[in-house]
Amino acid sequence: MNSRSPAPGTTMAADEIARVMSDIGGAARAAAPRLALSTGAERNAALLAAARALRERRSGILEANARDMRAAQDRNLTAALLDRLRLDDRRVEAMARGLEEIAALADPLGTVSAEWTRPNGLHIQRVRVPLGVIGIIYESRPNVTADAGALCLKSGNPVILRGGSESRESSAAIHECLLAGLEAAGLPAAAIQLVPTADRAAVGQMLSGMTGLIDVVVPRGGRSLVERVQAEARVPVIGHLEGNCHVYVDRDADLAMARSIVLNAKMRRTGICGAAETLLVDRGCIATHLGPLVADLIAAGCEVRGDADVQRVDPRVRPATEEDWRTEYLDAVIAVRVVAGVDEAIEHIGRYGSAHTESIVTRNARTADRFLGRVDSAIVLHNASTQFADGGEFGMGAEIGISTDRFHARGPVGVEQLTSYKYVVRGSGQVRP
Amino acid sequence: MNSRSPAPGTTMAADEIARVMSDIGGAARAAAPRLALSTGAERNAALLAAARALRERRSGILEANARDMRAAQDRNLTAALLDRLRLDDRRVEAMARGLEEIAALADPLGTVSAEWTRPNGLHIQRVRVPLGVIGIIYESRPNVTADAGALCLKSGNPVILRGGSESRESSAAIHECLLAGLEAAGLPAAAIQLVPTADRAAVGQMLSGMTGLIDVVVPRGGRSLVERVQAEARVPVIGHLEGNCHVYVDRDADLAMARSIVLNAKMRRTGICGAAETLLVDRGCIATHLGPLVADLIAAGCEVRGDADVQRVDPRVRPATEEDWRTEYLDAVIAVRVVAGVDEAIEHIGRYGSAHTESIVTRNARTADRFLGRVDSAIVLHNASTQFADGGEFGMGAEIGISTDRFHARGPVGVEQLTSYKYVVRGSGQVRP
Repeated sequence: MNSRSPAPGTTMAADEIARVMSDIGGAARAAAPRLALSTGAERNAALLAAARALRERRSGILEANARDMRAAQDRNLTAALLDRLRLDDRRVEAMARGLEEIAALADPLGTVSAEWTRPNGLHIQRVRVPLGVIGIIYESRPNVTADAGALCLKSGNPVILRGGSESRESSAAIHECLLAGLEAAGLPAAAIQLVPTADRAAVGQMLSGMTGLIDVVVPRGGRSLVERVQAEARVPVIGHLEGNCHVYVDRDADLAMARSIVLNAKMRRTGICGAAETLLVDRGCIATHLGPLVADLIAAGCEVRGDADVQRVDPRVRPATEEDWRTEYLDAVIAVRVVAGVDEAIEHIGRYGSAHTESIVTRNARTADRFLGRVDSAIVLHNASTQFADGGEFGMGAEIGISTDRFHARGPVGVEQLTSYKYVVRGSGQVRP
Repeated sequence: MNSRSPAPGTTMAADEIARVMSDIGGAARAAAPRLALSTGAERNAALLAAARALRERRSGILEANARDMRAAQDRNLTAALLDRLRLDDRRVEAMARGLEEIAALADPLGTVSAEWTRPNGLHIQRVRVPLGVIGIIYESRPNVTADAGALCLKSGNPVILRGGSESRESSAAIHECLLAGLEAAGLPAAAIQLVPTADRAAVGQMLSGMTGLIDVVVPRGGRSLVERVQAEARVPVIGHLEGNCHVYVDRDADLAMARSIVLNAKMRRTGICGAAETLLVDRGCIATHLGPLVADLIAAGCEVRGDADVQRVDPRVRPATEEDWRTEYLDAVIAVRVVAGVDEAIEHIGRYGSAHTESIVTRNARTADRFLGRVDSAIVLHNASTQFADGGEFGMGAEIGISTDRFHARGPVGVEQLTSYKYVVRGSGQVRP
């Protein structure tokens, strides 16, 4: 962090913020070549030393978090927000283990993703290089400071972290551990910088005032943050829109499998982006499948909102409105609709979905292929829960989120998606005819 | 093209332009699923039929071009611009052959770029899909209408083409041939649309007024266009900045090879983005190498601007200023500087270059590896001419340009770079623990 930066939380004037952010961006840019040329061993040493520091400084981190929690309680923040903000021994240990897991991933840099030789003898390699300076804008969860900082470091990218004001003391304490790791490995402190002000003007600077200094911004937060980013950003964005995910139970679905998948997709964890929000059931199997599916959900504590057909199956089903088809509840609520078959399911998903993750349950391979081919979402599954939408579950290691963009990175954004590439061409004197 | 669109060149009010562009974007968006699900055979049939139409309608195209040329002459456009605008039998034939070559490329869609099976049995495939609706903003060369339209069609992306006002009659005639190809193949006409107005407000609409309708914009033009796009765009951009390309002749360079590469890199064609603009010569070989390199360039008709060391070698060398190191001449002019060795060359390129294409000439493998590893450009070459910076020369087929971005696509942008991907996951009832 820039030595002239004031302490976290300090109020600043607009021109002061612009100056501080410009200094931070300049320091990040200056650190980029050193980081790009660092060895995997150096970056891993920094990650492991940071993990050790997290464990050693646990009590200090928890004290900082207690100050954040008191301030949050004074501001009457919601219980859900307080839970996201809260750290305890287990969560600090999980952060440390997360850094160790990222250290254990293969080095994404320098790998040759393609190579070929031209008829004229030119040998061409496409080699992975860092993406550049990454800006991460997130909300209350302080563990994002560790996760996002570590993923960017692993992929050789200087990162500028701008966390939520609620978690500023916790994030600062975690950031100190990351800095200790960088120092232990002899890497520049500017590799991982934390924005020292909670002022929203700093976000504006990252989105539009630092072109040439920030190469890409990653918003991690709710719809309002993502929408602000998309409206204001003058730099490329890896966007994480909402996950209005669907499960379609086809007439050829195995009932036991459908019950298991629907219950897991909705209720395993309701607050993650891969949680199912709408269940579509084929009219061809409502006599056998719809009742048990709805009864399972209600028995598990889920509120079910349905169309007329679904309401007929169970008196506890409330009426669904047009708005329900568009809603990402992130809660124990599901919208259920009966459709005429796979094509109406595809059409419904195209109209109301957010192109995140959708699943079909069927034993019919042709119906499955139709769904997998025609549903235009980042992740489409056959006979599996939407809750597998996760970089770890994909075997990609930790992730910075699930991208619903089509540009650059789609689906889980892990270390590989935080890289770019260059072409290395070796010749023996070739000139172009 | 939308049936309510007025004829090319018609003047429109701002709200009329917004309405027309919104109609065009809506039609492109609506065409996307049909195009994404089209077969490679259908898309190739459209390309081949368009090539036939270009040949059959050649005289009409040349007449339209003659009208554009007369208007351009009346407006006293430069000779270089007139040359870019001019079509003749050979150029129309080259366009037709270009479409046939694009048809002959492998289908980029549906290919599996990675696949693996998880321990829980989930089988994951990363499958190429179209990128989305592409907007192409270009200047006077009418052949871009055919090339860009064909590349987007090949990759399954609806495209909105906005050509320069100078070439509007030529582009409209070429566009009619593309439409004939689409019709012959049974593909929607909205797959390739031409903006029917030369008003610059249409460009503004594409950059910021059509989010949700356009997924990515590709500017093909000079610095002012690229800068306008980068300043205004609210949609992702595949940017083509200038190519301030360098050749570094190392102390361990073979002299004959260095002479051949430098001459080719600068003089084969001076107007392309891969043309060398600055020559860096290692002080360790100026006694032997600098004189012949400079003499060759001057003999070939190139103006040489150099630092004091270079001026000393030949009285015809003019003094280079700081501005020369930053300049993309796109002409028979070169800046020449003596550097202390490979590290100073790398530093010079980092400071003044545009991260496009740079080449080192040396017999020393270690020096070459240092240069290739440390120069952060889209393309780095060892013992080969910078003029190989070209999708065709890379074996990627036709290209839409060379990207100097780090995000999504870097280097030549061919059909593969115009795709995104999705994850197709096949299970047997897996739920997440």
